[in-house]
Amino acid sequence: MLRVGILGLGTVGGGVVKIIRDRKQDFQSILGRELKIVKVMSRRDHRLEELGLSKDLYTDCFDEFLEEDLDIVVEAIGGDIPSETLLKAIQKGCKVVTANKALLADRPRDFMGSENGHHLFFEASCCGGIPIISSFEEGLLSNPISRILGIFNGTCNYILSEMKSKGSAFQDVLKEAQELGYAEADPTFDVEGIDATHKLSLLGSLAFQQHLEFNKIPVSGISQLQPEDFKWAKDNDHTIKLISMAERKGEQVFAGTFPCMIPSEHPLAGVNGANNAVFVQGDYVGDLMFYGAGAGELPTASAVVSDILAAAQERPRNWSHRVFKDAQSADLTQDRKDSFYLRLCTVDQAGVLSKLCSILSKSSISLRFVHQKPIADNQANIVFTTHPTESQAMEKALKEISLSGLLRDENLVMRILDN
Amino acid sequence: MLRVGILGLGTVGGGVVKIIRDRKQDFQSILGRELKIVKVMSRRDHRLEELGLSKDLYTDCFDEFLEEDLDIVVEAIGGDIPSETLLKAIQKGCKVVTANKALLADRPRDFMGSENGHHLFFEASCCGGIPIISSFEEGLLSNPISRILGIFNGTCNYILSEMKSKGSAFQDVLKEAQELGYAEADPTFDVEGIDATHKLSLLGSLAFQQHLEFNKIPVSGISQLQPEDFKWAKDNDHTIKLISMAERKGEQVFAGTFPCMIPSEHPLAGVNGANNAVFVQGDYVGDLMFYGAGAGELPTASAVVSDILAAAQERPRNWSHRVFKDAQSADLTQDRKDSFYLRLCTVDQAGVLSKLCSILSKSSISLRFVHQKPIADNQANIVFTTHPTESQAMEKALKEISLSGLLRDENLVMRILDN
Repeated sequence: MLRVGILGLGTVGGGVVKIIRDRKQDFQSILGRELKIVKVMSRRDHRLEELGLSKDLYTDCFDEFLEEDLDIVVEAIGGDIPSETLLKAIQKGCKVVTANKALLADRPRDFMGSENGHHLFFEASCCGGIPIISSFEEGLLSNPISRILGIFNGTCNYILSEMKSKGSAFQDVLKEAQELGYAEADPTFDVEGIDATHKLSLLGSLAFQQHLEFNKIPVSGISQLQPEDFKWAKDNDHTIKLISMAERKGEQVFAGTFPCMIPSEHPLAGVNGANNAVFVQGDYVGDLMFYGAGAGELPTASAVVSDILAAAQERPRNWSHRVFKDAQSADLTQDRKDSFYLRLCTVDQAGVLSKLCSILSKSSISLRFVHQKPIADNQANIVFTTHPTESQAMEKALKEISLSGLLRDENLVMRILDN
Repeated sequence: MLRVGILGLGTVGGGVVKIIRDRKQDFQSILGRELKIVKVMSRRDHRLEELGLSKDLYTDCFDEFLEEDLDIVVEAIGGDIPSETLLKAIQKGCKVVTANKALLADRPRDFMGSENGHHLFFEASCCGGIPIISSFEEGLLSNPISRILGIFNGTCNYILSEMKSKGSAFQDVLKEAQELGYAEADPTFDVEGIDATHKLSLLGSLAFQQHLEFNKIPVSGISQLQPEDFKWAKDNDHTIKLISMAERKGEQVFAGTFPCMIPSEHPLAGVNGANNAVFVQGDYVGDLMFYGAGAGELPTASAVVSDILAAAQERPRNWSHRVFKDAQSADLTQDRKDSFYLRLCTVDQAGVLSKLCSILSKSSISLRFVHQKPIADNQANIVFTTHPTESQAMEKALKEISLSGLLRDENLVMRILDN
């Protein structure tokens, strides 16, 4: 018998209980022995009955939980739990399966800096049921990875898909998404790109065998986007997505989470609704994309249970372990040559466009598209797109524009990822 | 040291040699020991030098090849090699990595019916570098799979993408594809759906834990498609793809390879060019899609080398082994309720449409769209689409239409996969 203990009976924990219950016979047949939940720790015991578990399994005390003889511990509490909790389980000889991306992105070396890393399974921490981490462990192992591009946050992708198809404003779609349960009451963590960047930190580290430290990766979210940005995108065969990107640049790694324009024919452009996708470029395998539900009770529990089965079959996480054991922190850069989309709100007076163009020109930024229109309150709205420009040149020009006193609120700068 | 022997130095074998050479240090560091090619068997020895291999490694004799002390044997000969060749290697204690889908689809039980199955690695046999088989082994293991839909043949997908974007005729695009090296001189194996059905047989068997016997799966190819079919598709927000499909229907499995209309917003509709994709519906994980290059020297070699690394790390193929060991052959069915697209070429005379409609109506087939236009030689072209119809009713009606004497050549019936 394989003795499983579960920490947390929320959405994911409940899903895990359901799958283990529903597939009892199949798992017995795959593993040659029974997979049995023998202990549950949670704050309250009210869900045990509803999930068909005996109240005898319940504890609210971690030390009591660990006193049980366990083979596998599932951590489904989430959030900011102390690393020590899980390390104690590993040190007792348990394999640990977790869906907690924040924990791993913030403190990966707590787990993966030592032999512990072989025994930590975290497929569910990134992109729900998409088997991306097990693919790094197996199917992609022969490849140096040169780039990953991800749509890592279902809430943002839902909002962007709705803004695109309905032409609605961000705040209106957000409100709808909250009513439908696609967004939290406080949506900051999702819409400002923090959740996506946790995943980028983890998956980027696995891809490049270097630790992409979460708190060094630049993040911008989607709350500044306006319907006219989507109109420009549509008219110019592009789609706006919140992209988390990491790319090898010699000894450095370009990394960031930002909304950007991608060509409509790019496979990521067709990823709609609350889905996630990971686009990987390998030196040998070429372009690969993985697509699926990035969250939800059963998709996430599917990944947790697949990890339980991998743990039960003694398939160690050699790659994950190795990455964080050996890896230096990556030297991150913001330099990348892209075309840019600028939407600027300016005072509407003589000479503004001339001054803006002169600033851009001084930084050797070549313009590709310009559209100015008057808006309310004696202001003008100007959209520029540029030919490919080094980030540093763009940054310098933007600083000068910002100091020029020509701008009003609500300006936006986006990369156009044409390569 | 891990001692690798390679059977066949064609495109894939050559790619494997290159990857092992280029990543020598990395693989040493992943495995803790050197991965070394110590023997090569091929028909001729002219590629060894070009690939930087000593001619001392060469043999053209399988028995001599096997006399070498080998840990891992890579089979990159392809085609109809005898199973015994590989079984001998397994029985000698080698792990075998193969890219040979025809062999496995025709005779899976030669390998996977016994303990041998644990030691056979065949990621490269399906969809090039897409890590679909290792995902069945790990990341999807918790899920009962209810459906797989695949774009499994890059040649067909290239041709269909070109027919769609350029409005060209099949024969013209095929000729172009042959000139560009995307299609063989004899394209039958690809364009008639045989290659795709080999992959469906293997992947469908893994998905449903039942052997989907290759020679019982109905196949139709893409050579009957005409530009006007693509025009109808475009006007009606659909895309034509050669789909290999397997779907659980109670105790039976619906399976087949056929061109069909899929909605333009379906993730498979955006898979263009010579790419492959696998769309999987799991009971828990929901919809997943894997996308990537389905063939080619390095994408396929990437999968072979990933399998070599999995074999070297002693990651047994438990799932693949189990499927073919335990599984009965699947009870295949052709019954599925779909809308259908019919393009019929008829004599252009009074009463034809009336007779056709009457036949369809007798089988309780309800029409959704009808368009008739005259074409050359006193003939008419009629396109019907139907409301959802059981396959049997459609088959009965088609038989009656065919016996009616109303039809000329070049008729086409396609499913419209709206669900």
